[in-house]
Amino acid sequence: MKNAAVLAVLIAAVVRGQAPVNVMPAPARMMRLPGEWTVDATFRASITGYRDESLERAVQRFATALSAKTGARLDGVAAPDGKSTTVRIRCAGPGRDAANESYTLVVRSAGVELKAQEPLGVLRGLATLYELVNVTTAGAAAPAVSIEDRPRFEWRGLMIDVARHFMPVDDLLRQIDGMEMVKLNVLHLHLSDAQAFRVESKVWPKLTADGSEGLFYTQDDIRRIVAYAQDRGVRVVPEFDVPGHTKAWLVGYPELAAKPGPYHMGADADVAHATLDPSKEQVYEFLDRLFGEMAALFPDRTFHIGGDEVTGRHWAASPSIQAFMKEKGFADQHQLQAYFTGRVYEIVRKHGKTMIGWDEILRPGLPTDVVVQAWRSSKMMARAAIDGHAVIESGPYYLDFVLPAGYHYRMDPVDTASFGISAAEMEMAKGTPIGPYMTVDKVVSGPTPLTPAQQGLIKGGEAALWSELVTAEMLDGRLWPRMAAIAERFWSPKTVVDEDDMYRRLAAIDRDLETIGLRHRTNSRLMLERFAAGYGATVGIFAETVEPIKFYGRHSRRSQPGRPPEGRALADATPPENLAIRQFEREVRSAAANRYGPQEVRDHVRAMLTVWRDNEDRFAEAAAENAALRPFLPMSRDLAALARAGLEAMTFQEQRKRAPARWLETQLALTGKYKDQASAAAGVVYSILRPQPATELTLAVAPSIEILIKAVK
Amino acid sequence: MKNAAVLAVLIAAVVRGQAPVNVMPAPARMMRLPGEWTVDATFRASITGYRDESLERAVQRFATALSAKTGARLDGVAAPDGKSTTVRIRCAGPGRDAANESYTLVVRSAGVELKAQEPLGVLRGLATLYELVNVTTAGAAAPAVSIEDRPRFEWRGLMIDVARHFMPVDDLLRQIDGMEMVKLNVLHLHLSDAQAFRVESKVWPKLTADGSEGLFYTQDDIRRIVAYAQDRGVRVVPEFDVPGHTKAWLVGYPELAAKPGPYHMGADADVAHATLDPSKEQVYEFLDRLFGEMAALFPDRTFHIGGDEVTGRHWAASPSIQAFMKEKGFADQHQLQAYFTGRVYEIVRKHGKTMIGWDEILRPGLPTDVVVQAWRSSKMMARAAIDGHAVIESGPYYLDFVLPAGYHYRMDPVDTASFGISAAEMEMAKGTPIGPYMTVDKVVSGPTPLTPAQQGLIKGGEAALWSELVTAEMLDGRLWPRMAAIAERFWSPKTVVDEDDMYRRLAAIDRDLETIGLRHRTNSRLMLERFAAGYGATVGIFAETVEPIKFYGRHSRRSQPGRPPEGRALADATPPENLAIRQFEREVRSAAANRYGPQEVRDHVRAMLTVWRDNEDRFAEAAAENAALRPFLPMSRDLAALARAGLEAMTFQEQRKRAPARWLETQLALTGKYKDQASAAAGVVYSILRPQPATELTLAVAPSIEILIKAVK
Repeated sequence: MKNAAVLAVLIAAVVRGQAPVNVMPAPARMMRLPGEWTVDATFRASITGYRDESLERAVQRFATALSAKTGARLDGVAAPDGKSTTVRIRCAGPGRDAANESYTLVVRSAGVELKAQEPLGVLRGLATLYELVNVTTAGAAAPAVSIEDRPRFEWRGLMIDVARHFMPVDDLLRQIDGMEMVKLNVLHLHLSDAQAFRVESKVWPKLTADGSEGLFYTQDDIRRIVAYAQDRGVRVVPEFDVPGHTKAWLVGYPELAAKPGPYHMGADADVAHATLDPSKEQVYEFLDRLFGEMAALFPDRTFHIGGDEVTGRHWAASPSIQAFMKEKGFADQHQLQAYFTGRVYEIVRKHGKTMIGWDEILRPGLPTDVVVQAWRSSKMMARAAIDGHAVIESGPYYLDFVLPAGYHYRMDPVDTASFGISAAEMEMAKGTPIGPYMTVDKVVSGPTPLTPAQQGLIKGGEAALWSELVTAEMLDGRLWPRMAAIAERFWSPKTVVDEDDMYRRLAAIDRDLETIGLRHRTNSRLMLERFAAGYGATVGIFAETVEPIKFYGRHSRRSQPGRPPEGRALADATPPENLAIRQFEREVRSAAANRYGPQEVRDHVRAMLTVWRDNEDRFAEAAAENAALRPFLPMSRDLAALARAGLEAMTFQEQRKRAPARWLETQLALTGKYKDQASAAAGVVYSILRPQPATELTLAVAPSIEILIKAVK
Repeated sequence: MKNAAVLAVLIAAVVRGQAPVNVMPAPARMMRLPGEWTVDATFRASITGYRDESLERAVQRFATALSAKTGARLDGVAAPDGKSTTVRIRCAGPGRDAANESYTLVVRSAGVELKAQEPLGVLRGLATLYELVNVTTAGAAAPAVSIEDRPRFEWRGLMIDVARHFMPVDDLLRQIDGMEMVKLNVLHLHLSDAQAFRVESKVWPKLTADGSEGLFYTQDDIRRIVAYAQDRGVRVVPEFDVPGHTKAWLVGYPELAAKPGPYHMGADADVAHATLDPSKEQVYEFLDRLFGEMAALFPDRTFHIGGDEVTGRHWAASPSIQAFMKEKGFADQHQLQAYFTGRVYEIVRKHGKTMIGWDEILRPGLPTDVVVQAWRSSKMMARAAIDGHAVIESGPYYLDFVLPAGYHYRMDPVDTASFGISAAEMEMAKGTPIGPYMTVDKVVSGPTPLTPAQQGLIKGGEAALWSELVTAEMLDGRLWPRMAAIAERFWSPKTVVDEDDMYRRLAAIDRDLETIGLRHRTNSRLMLERFAAGYGATVGIFAETVEPIKFYGRHSRRSQPGRPPEGRALADATPPENLAIRQFEREVRSAAANRYGPQEVRDHVRAMLTVWRDNEDRFAEAAAENAALRPFLPMSRDLAALARAGLEAMTFQEQRKRAPARWLETQLALTGKYKDQASAAAGVVYSILRPQPATELTLAVAPSIEILIKAVK
């Protein structure tokens, strides 16, 4: 959507009611056919070929969901009385170990045909059909299409950290509904960490009694989550992170620790350093019983053992561990961890599972049937594949960086230089720490050539949501709708890269997600109302121009005194990416490129700028009464100044004038102040170099207004 | 809130963070104590005395809900490790047949004590505690209070018509969550009607196979709904409406009908007239087996058999029925129905249930253990009580009239003249038909004196939501938040009648309801976005000034050609009552009463009027592109004209001028055009006398603007 003409065409298409195709992920192959299929009370689905109860439930669920989306009264599976069928589903056979998710879907005015090899393919086809249906005042209809679809990657995952903030069962189930809609197939639960152990163990009850603050999943909860996910074509992969990130285990079982106890819940130095003692046989006996219990509880064939971020400090300080290392001839902590990983591998294998670990487990001698989840860099991904491991790529897909969907969308899972940082930025960022364990230059590398066989080992990608700053109330908003764009990256062909088209479809999926029950918009609004305490209108206008600062900028402020607890800051209520700002940016590009039109776009840009300009006084009045708003006053003033500048720039443009140099300098200084925080790739690097604003927000409209300003340079 | 001073105090209280008490229904007795109880991670609940699994689930659910509301990490029931308990719950014993819902709740800074005789009382107390908690940026806390609470009425019901539009299971469960929050205890499901039979019968499978269009509850669904409701202190009362409203039964079983079949699904003359044949023994055998099956499926001690609106046309046309009446010596259709009711009574009694019926079953000789649900008028309520029947009052609580919460709130269940229509209005409305079966003067009467014993027979009230115009997507919006005001009428003392205070609390409960998952605001917004098709902002501004026309005005337009189907009209997306308009009305009263202040109120009124005035052009542009908006153009113009008039009136007032007579006349003509549609009591009568606008909307802000105009008269 780089120019006004394209935007005008799009607006015209929407206005005239031409049916857009809003499927996300985009199908592998699709052809438009003439006409459309109307969704009305004649709807009736039939299943021929193979069928089972889960498939019947899926079709019934589809009918219910489509009924809710369209307001039409829809039957589920056809009654046996010979009434005509409008959605004909044919499933060739039952599901197999090597899941086949492919399907063909033909939508014609006369009805729909959906064919798949397995029930999983039917599920994927139904998700497509649901999204295809557009609802307008004229009724509900899907454009006629012929689709042949299959996933690019077999592993399309989402990791949720339920350890740092507990996520109640219902909140997780809702995310699984969203996952089904965008064809994700792996829910990876990070079930234990320094902060808590979140699953009931009958073998080791003190794990939750002492290490969960009472917030954990019972085994019945887990069975419920797993069954719910299975019905929706989603595998549940459990992670129990060892040997580091284990402080919560050691509160109840200090005898497993490298450093003598006692250990306590809460924030202290042990959070980073507490580690299991690899020299004790007792540790392996403990893990054998625990992993045996958990392997039975979680039916998936894989089992994630973590393995990341071992600082080694407690190992270095323990005489008995040092003696053990000497005896075994281990030169450093990495060799000791490799020994530990090998022992754990035997346990996991004994319980019939394939082991997965974060990329720190990648050491010479790691058995090749271990799956490596690359997170520190695409360099690690390449290295794992070269060593012959199946790999899951996560580095470019960290949702807790609160970056725009487009940022992640540009990263390809098999691109070995996918962090997208330029050589110049690299040079600048050398030595910059990223978290406590590494520097930028260590994790980002140039492209590493992989053979086709090595590329084939990249099984897919997994987005990760770490929950230091994510409460259950924020969960939906930190995941959706951005997760849908990443899901497309994992499912659709590599060639699907049109970001403007992605954003267009994302807006439609955003509504679909809300229709099926996701609460990203609802909770954001409720949190904002709570924050605004009676000044909803003015705070709402302000909030729609900002986004939380990017990368780990907010994390670095966590220990600041007076900072509101998680879930109470304005930055918590604000979506990571405001789709209305993206839309504004597209309009601005159009307005900046052509002073003649389309007039309605220019009018809309002017209207938005006017609202922002006029909000300053009301915001100031609100802040006079509501102390929580005061830290945002300078930013509210900057917003008004930028809005004035944008309006002035439009006037210069209409008068065919160039802006005075002095004016330009002033305005660009102001946009520059916010630009880095709001940009994506650069922001990753820069946000850790700069002091973070106490508002924890950036004026996300600043770069758009800068476009207007630069247009009259 | 009749003047500016009170409003200023309220605003100041909110701004300064003084803790408001937002409990709804208002408790029977409450005393404020100094201080507040902070909700944080120290939260821990304990249960002493009697406990069962359902009670433990309730406490766990409470902790989860409060955790979601506050963003705090809360435990459920205390672990047995002696950690301190902040919410101490004491339950004296198990539930009994005569349910005792009373409780005492003492909230102090040190913690909370909740005591009840039965688990039901604990549930009610937890609902109060949930509402007491205010969440602000400063944290979550409940004001310290001492509460002694018990319901005024034992029957506090909500009837949902799931026959005319099917409501899927999940939609119902969500409403039960809302019911628990506002302490309603009876969910009455209207399960069959002319349009459909909605419960699986294994005895008579053609009831759903031929009479449900495939949309019905399986018996497992029903068990799930009943168990879910029971856990939340809500009884589920099934209704199978006989002998009228039975067309859907007769599609599969025409042999039961008074008129020979065949019968077909869909809209035809049989919808109103199809009736069972009371002269056939086969009918009673059929009902015996069906009611036996359903009596076992629904555990509640009551069983509703409908009995309303029998037209008698098919009975009159049937020679065999006429012969039967002659043989029995029945003078008219009412005696025939009384005979039928008597036979059904024996069947219901045989299956161990207490029979309930709509007030048409009230005939001499009706056994006094039959409960009468009065709907046609408070006159019928009085008559039933005088005849010795337990009565449930529903007439004043029809939610499908889409009236404001305040209208229903003013009606007392034991007020025998509670329709609230003045003598003058009565005179005017004489002979006006209300629906097909009665006229206004027949249903409304002056007060009928009842003895205390007779008054004691009024067991409570039940709101009714008939679903001719209510799709599943609209369900939440047509129920909430208005239902909360009615729930207060059923629970709280008769003396709780302050409407302004009710509306203040309603706004808080509205958010609570959304927080626990109700979708009234979310679905309304999604429907509006769908309708606006890209013009969300301008349509949104317009939509916030309108409400659907009242009473059955929209129903009378159902057969108009070109009318959008249910769920697709702008009037469907619009809440029955817009709380922002009520708030505007309060501000206007304040601004009209005092030209000196408070300035922020006057500013806000001006700002709203300005936005409405300026929306006209943008709405016209949108309507040029989106045909669905065109019918609303005249109303959009009227809105702008009224907004201009309001602004002019404020200027007159500030200049201490009286408005010119000519100006006044013009403006009042415009407000008058919309006033009747928007008013409540008068609207009930007037809306059926007048032609209904094709927009099916009224400008609900017109009466508020009229206040400004009249202030400068």
